[in-house]
Amino acid sequence: MSAALTAANRNKTVLLLGSRDMSEKIVKAHEIRNYPGLPAVKGTEMAEAFRNHLEKAGITITEGRVGAVYAMGDYFALQIGEEMREAKAVILATGVVNANPLPGEKELLGRGVSYCATCDAPLYRGKSAAVIGYSPREEAEAVFLSEVCSDVTYFPVYREETNLPEKVQVIREKVTGIVQEGGKRIVRTENGEYRTDGVFVLREAVAPDNLVPGLETEGAHVKVNRKMETNLPGVFAAGDLTGLPYQYVKAAGEGNVAAISAAQYLDQLR
Amino acid sequence: MSAALTAANRNKTVLLLGSRDMSEKIVKAHEIRNYPGLPAVKGTEMAEAFRNHLEKAGITITEGRVGAVYAMGDYFALQIGEEMREAKAVILATGVVNANPLPGEKELLGRGVSYCATCDAPLYRGKSAAVIGYSPREEAEAVFLSEVCSDVTYFPVYREETNLPEKVQVIREKVTGIVQEGGKRIVRTENGEYRTDGVFVLREAVAPDNLVPGLETEGAHVKVNRKMETNLPGVFAAGDLTGLPYQYVKAAGEGNVAAISAAQYLDQLR
Repeated sequence: MSAALTAANRNKTVLLLGSRDMSEKIVKAHEIRNYPGLPAVKGTEMAEAFRNHLEKAGITITEGRVGAVYAMGDYFALQIGEEMREAKAVILATGVVNANPLPGEKELLGRGVSYCATCDAPLYRGKSAAVIGYSPREEAEAVFLSEVCSDVTYFPVYREETNLPEKVQVIREKVTGIVQEGGKRIVRTENGEYRTDGVFVLREAVAPDNLVPGLETEGAHVKVNRKMETNLPGVFAAGDLTGLPYQYVKAAGEGNVAAISAAQYLDQLR
Repeated sequence: MSAALTAANRNKTVLLLGSRDMSEKIVKAHEIRNYPGLPAVKGTEMAEAFRNHLEKAGITITEGRVGAVYAMGDYFALQIGEEMREAKAVILATGVVNANPLPGEKELLGRGVSYCATCDAPLYRGKSAAVIGYSPREEAEAVFLSEVCSDVTYFPVYREETNLPEKVQVIREKVTGIVQEGGKRIVRTENGEYRTDGVFVLREAVAPDNLVPGLETEGAHVKVNRKMETNLPGVFAAGDLTGLPYQYVKAAGEGNVAAISAAQYLDQLR
């Protein structure tokens, strides 16, 4: 949001992709005491202050989950569900992915494992699918898949109660990996094995190097310099994604710097 | 302020040195539109929000101008006027010095040129002094010197009207340099030369490498890494001082990171 505000101030056209609820992290934050200017606010109050600021600046949040960002030479193609959008510069501010990839996940990505139900559901029409969901928000994806697939098994990776229709089978077992066997995928848990056609691994954010092919990372973090430039020209990053500390005002500051660097990059393209 | 808030949150004892008016820059800012959470605020409103936050966090601003920071091995000595204070870690957040040093200024520093009226006035008791003042705030220093020195000449480096007692002679000429001649100092302007005993060059902030001997700089900026560490262990920097862009939220973000790095440094000392 900070990047969007500054980019808009610099007269750039901004597409702010994300969730109007902001993030699980901010919604659940009990109290934030060190964001200068907003003393001792609840996460929800801070989110409200930010939404209010965006509104006053005429910036809307476009709900959408970006599955991939492809560098096309002089522009970027963003895959958002089944839609494609274009941008001349991209600022990544996805937050950090807490979970390590599951064993087998990266190896089978695009070969029976998917990060995007909207994109890949058609491949599993009338077939079976498993969903490994890292937050209650992913349940909506399982419901959608259950309308397309013959059967859906849902593995919640969180404590909250699930709220799913009966035809979605919920398995509360710790997933230990995904393997390939004779044209099928097998979800392995601590207690058993579940055979299926497609496996959807759904997290709030995708690991950055899966999101942007060729992006240089250090563990879970994107490598940036002090200008918030990544190794890819035209791709910038800000916030938790760039490394510790995971703090709101640090993220806001980096968003500002990323937007100014992106604006300079765009001005040079002309 | 951001650094002070986060350091206090991390249970560190904080001495926040500065001005309760904050800075010339913030006071004069017409409207700031991209500090997330404070939509379209005047500089004075932002300063008020920050002061309010500090107050709620129980942090007071100690008025004082730091003349020098000396590394003493396991602690730092801060010269504040005639007083000395100690600290185990130092976060520099002075803002950036806009002016280049005057020709002769650095060479004669400590030999007839001073940055601190409070510290060095006694050296010029009954003698003559010249004050080169970069903002109206420095007029108070000229008044103080006029009570100690035989005569004071004031060179304002700003457009505002001066408000000084008659015994302070105001010269509105562009200063071009300072030279030494037979035990006297000469302030050179575009229009003439002014002979005096001591020359006080008073700016809102001192150049960082004059403030902290041995500090690595790049032009007017302090060299820092992504953790806001300088080349000197225990010395951190944040804000405009570390380089472009000169933006409030960037400065606040860096203050947060600097405080966390400083807290980690202090924890390691134990």
